[in-house]
Amino acid sequence: MNNLDQLACEFDVILKKYLPSKKSPEIIYESVFYSLFAGGKRIRPILLLQSCSLACGDLNFAQPLAAAIEMIHTYSLIHDDLPCMDNDDYRRGKLTNHKMFSYPVAVLAGDALLNMAYETIMNGYFGVKDKDSYMKAAFIIAKAAGIDGMIAGQTADITLEGAEPDKKAVDFIHKHKTSALIEASIHAGMLSGKLDDEQQLHLLEYASCIGMMFQIVDDILDVVGDEGVMGKDTGKDDNKMSYPRAYGLDESYAKVEYLKNKSIESLKIFGSKADFFKNLTLFLSERNK
Amino acid sequence: MNNLDQLACEFDVILKKYLPSKKSPEIIYESVFYSLFAGGKRIRPILLLQSCSLACGDLNFAQPLAAAIEMIHTYSLIHDDLPCMDNDDYRRGKLTNHKMFSYPVAVLAGDALLNMAYETIMNGYFGVKDKDSYMKAAFIIAKAAGIDGMIAGQTADITLEGAEPDKKAVDFIHKHKTSALIEASIHAGMLSGKLDDEQQLHLLEYASCIGMMFQIVDDILDVVGDEGVMGKDTGKDDNKMSYPRAYGLDESYAKVEYLKNKSIESLKIFGSKADFFKNLTLFLSERNK
Repeated sequence: MNNLDQLACEFDVILKKYLPSKKSPEIIYESVFYSLFAGGKRIRPILLLQSCSLACGDLNFAQPLAAAIEMIHTYSLIHDDLPCMDNDDYRRGKLTNHKMFSYPVAVLAGDALLNMAYETIMNGYFGVKDKDSYMKAAFIIAKAAGIDGMIAGQTADITLEGAEPDKKAVDFIHKHKTSALIEASIHAGMLSGKLDDEQQLHLLEYASCIGMMFQIVDDILDVVGDEGVMGKDTGKDDNKMSYPRAYGLDESYAKVEYLKNKSIESLKIFGSKADFFKNLTLFLSERNK
Repeated sequence: MNNLDQLACEFDVILKKYLPSKKSPEIIYESVFYSLFAGGKRIRPILLLQSCSLACGDLNFAQPLAAAIEMIHTYSLIHDDLPCMDNDDYRRGKLTNHKMFSYPVAVLAGDALLNMAYETIMNGYFGVKDKDSYMKAAFIIAKAAGIDGMIAGQTADITLEGAEPDKKAVDFIHKHKTSALIEASIHAGMLSGKLDDEQQLHLLEYASCIGMMFQIVDDILDVVGDEGVMGKDTGKDDNKMSYPRAYGLDESYAKVEYLKNKSIESLKIFGSKADFFKNLTLFLSERNK
């Protein structure tokens, strides 16, 4: 997708506005900045900003939330990679945070990023006009990241490691661990502007499809992907509650195809205004890393 | 202090209002509730609520913030106790979270509590009248908990373990790791009501004194305290940047005396209305656990 790198670059400029200046002890700032700028695709903040754009929303509303959601995503990766979790040495072709900075500093960097997300959200409150909608959007993000959302998914993922593959369990994990935050990105961005109820429902259906599709593609790549292209170890899910393990590879491909079509279908109401989202679906369904 | 247990009980009733219902996977809820109700003294939320009371403030403003600050404090204890940090097996006479629930679940329980604090704060927003002051108070708490506050202190504490005792370093650690959140409790509670500028300055001076005093007493107890009374191992700071190691035990006692007197002095402007804070100073300066 041609303009995704461009949008990621533009987001990086936004993100930098919300970062603290480096103070003492420097290692915690270096650790945080290292993971924030370790080559992430910026899918979640881009979705949030594009959703704002589709809703003709307020950029002062969407930008701090976009920065915050990338901080939340990054914290979750740092903690997921820890030795007591997935014990990963590399991510996106770079050393993981704890390999680079030590185990305790990585725990603290994750904590710092999660907290920073909410510092950013609260500071952003003072710059928006429609404060109640902003707080509603912020609350949606917080719920998605929390114990009933992403953390429930990660807990199930970790505690079910080694268990027999189970369709219900994998659906739960993917819905909570990955899809919740992706859906929240689109939902939060949408609230920055004015969409009618029908448009909102359609965009939320899109969000739900692409959130799940994203993780199933990830699971498939863990089976068939090329380590060199992906910049991380593959085959890590052999013991995990992954979609291919629970449903088989053929049904996983079929589900991606189904979600791809359904997500594109749900965008029809917006016409060509939603081309970004349509192209993103096509790009994400065909990605090889 | 007679009524501190009573205030802690009253706070527990408040706290329970803000907790999520237990869902699947149950282990993460159990882990969170275990540490939240593991016998904490509730000093921070009590300070926040008493500060609200002194300022004749709005309880709908103070209560969610009080719940949130105890969640933040509890998350910080869970992560501080982890094997990669202080590696503590017991806290308040009970097994630490990771000993009880496993290492990865303890990391996630800490994450869940930190996030839950902000879910609570955001949800509370919709129930207060003076929303801008509420968000100002919330932002003060978030800053105190974050990379420029508590996390900076914890990073310095961990990374300076084993280093030569250094007065400047120990001042930095105690100011950030412990005092910041205690000060924020009083500051946030104060903003729920109406105090004039002079009263605000005096109460903030009190907060600054008691925050530092609290940690120096903690350090002294690690040297002279009784393990049976304290419910945790003592002598854990032998390798840490503690006040007695940097300043000596005599000077530590003298500093506690100085901060005790200064904190009581700063309350004079309030007369008998501030008796709770005065008594708390006396209690905390003389505590043996």
